[in-house]
Amino acid sequence: MSELENFFSRCRRSVDKTLDELLPDEQTEPMRLHEAIRWSLFGGGKRFRPALVVAVGSSFGASEEKLLRTAAAIEMIHTYSLIHDDLPAMDNDDLRRGRPTCHKKFDEATAILTGDVLQTLAFQAIAEDERLDTRIRVKLILEISRAAGTPAGMVAGQQLDLEAEGKGVLIEELERIHHRKTGAIITVSARAGAIIAEADSKELEEITRFAAHLGLLFQITDDLLDVTQTTKVLGKTAGKDASAEKATYPAIYGLKQAQILAENIHGQARETLNKIDKPTKVLGELADFILNRKT
Amino acid sequence: MSELENFFSRCRRSVDKTLDELLPDEQTEPMRLHEAIRWSLFGGGKRFRPALVVAVGSSFGASEEKLLRTAAAIEMIHTYSLIHDDLPAMDNDDLRRGRPTCHKKFDEATAILTGDVLQTLAFQAIAEDERLDTRIRVKLILEISRAAGTPAGMVAGQQLDLEAEGKGVLIEELERIHHRKTGAIITVSARAGAIIAEADSKELEEITRFAAHLGLLFQITDDLLDVTQTTKVLGKTAGKDASAEKATYPAIYGLKQAQILAENIHGQARETLNKIDKPTKVLGELADFILNRKT
Repeated sequence: MSELENFFSRCRRSVDKTLDELLPDEQTEPMRLHEAIRWSLFGGGKRFRPALVVAVGSSFGASEEKLLRTAAAIEMIHTYSLIHDDLPAMDNDDLRRGRPTCHKKFDEATAILTGDVLQTLAFQAIAEDERLDTRIRVKLILEISRAAGTPAGMVAGQQLDLEAEGKGVLIEELERIHHRKTGAIITVSARAGAIIAEADSKELEEITRFAAHLGLLFQITDDLLDVTQTTKVLGKTAGKDASAEKATYPAIYGLKQAQILAENIHGQARETLNKIDKPTKVLGELADFILNRKT
Repeated sequence: MSELENFFSRCRRSVDKTLDELLPDEQTEPMRLHEAIRWSLFGGGKRFRPALVVAVGSSFGASEEKLLRTAAAIEMIHTYSLIHDDLPAMDNDDLRRGRPTCHKKFDEATAILTGDVLQTLAFQAIAEDERLDTRIRVKLILEISRAAGTPAGMVAGQQLDLEAEGKGVLIEELERIHHRKTGAIITVSARAGAIIAEADSKELEEITRFAAHLGLLFQITDDLLDVTQTTKVLGKTAGKDASAEKATYPAIYGLKQAQILAENIHGQARETLNKIDKPTKVLGELADFILNRKT
């Protein structure tokens, strides 16, 4: 295993253990709700966002145990957004991480409530984290809520994305959507790690720049995989961006140019790391990993 | 106007002004989302929960300006729950506060996202409230997330309520549902006021006991109104508890006994106030108001 694979696999184990501690068990009423929560959270998933929290936080000197609850909270918010995005009224998808989506496995009402309560549990997990100063907990909740909300966060991006379907949007609009829909949570994952490590404002600015590149890279490769990979490999329905006439990078730039763009952004992400006077080896490998990912 | 009416009307104005300051305006993208947020929040509503935050907080000596953001945040959480409860997959209701429900006025995807983001904005509003110590902000977020979440909060209650439909539940089960579905948020509204006023633990315990009675009273009268009032008066579909075979107090106790129960609970609520050595006149009138409410 490479150093990054090692890091990823250690990180996934710790994050899953933390999630398991934070979530009500399946024998607690309402059992169906708690089954649906665990079904959705423990169904695979790369745990990329929590890994970013831990990787940045560790680079800046925070202990892993201070980072894990916030990492788990961000994964809960990401998972809530997937559950709601998959609903019939939204993207109407049956498959996620290679298994039936939450509303397919359970039912629509349960899926709505599961997403709702994962958001609640995320903020609760941070508010409850006594390893962190109250000042830091407030800062984390503030930044994560802005990144998950509106007008500059994830829900705003999802709304813009739905409205853009079939409309043939321009590049600026595409960037505006993705900056919110996926970029904001990826950026706040990196920032959260730095905030917990009590990085200074210059460091925070540099890590934000790195994360912005990383988020864009993540989105472009996500769009590319939707075109180039099969449903089986992805574990979610492939080719659905095109069939829904979604705004994507390959749709606007073409496949070849979108690939070149991804490589350029990857180079820029790597460059921003040179300015950070910390052990950022894993962060560089994370950027490589995203450029080369196959799922 | 009575003193209570005066209080209610002043409080509603201040809460609405605070909400207006906290919410993105309708000219900010995504405009449809922000229109839906404002449509849902400014469509009437008694503002009972924010009034309780302000009434308790004022009784315990907190300034109104310290209370208003938390009061507004709790109203956002209440409104998010109404928007999602009204969805076709849940209670499937077309009418709320005398107007089309969010998914009827806009569309289902927008209604899901509007509910989602109102929850986010609620926690953001508290995290951002610089009038309050970070220690108090964390305590508020912690208590409100528990009250809104699972296993002891609002979403858990909603899940249990859906599962109980048509099943002829017993009294204990009915209480377990309502304690979570409506009681938890009403109780935390009162506690939030006391927490902001930095009440001591004995005072907090007493106000919690009062709020528990008030929440139960609220639920019983809510169930009664669904039977005794018209859709026009309620501004939401009347008689739908019976048609959905919901677990309600009149369904289990009968109309007359449920009314007597309401009066008893009201008496108990009033009694708990006697033990609180603070100016609680408005709180007593709030209990009277709930007992006698017509909508």
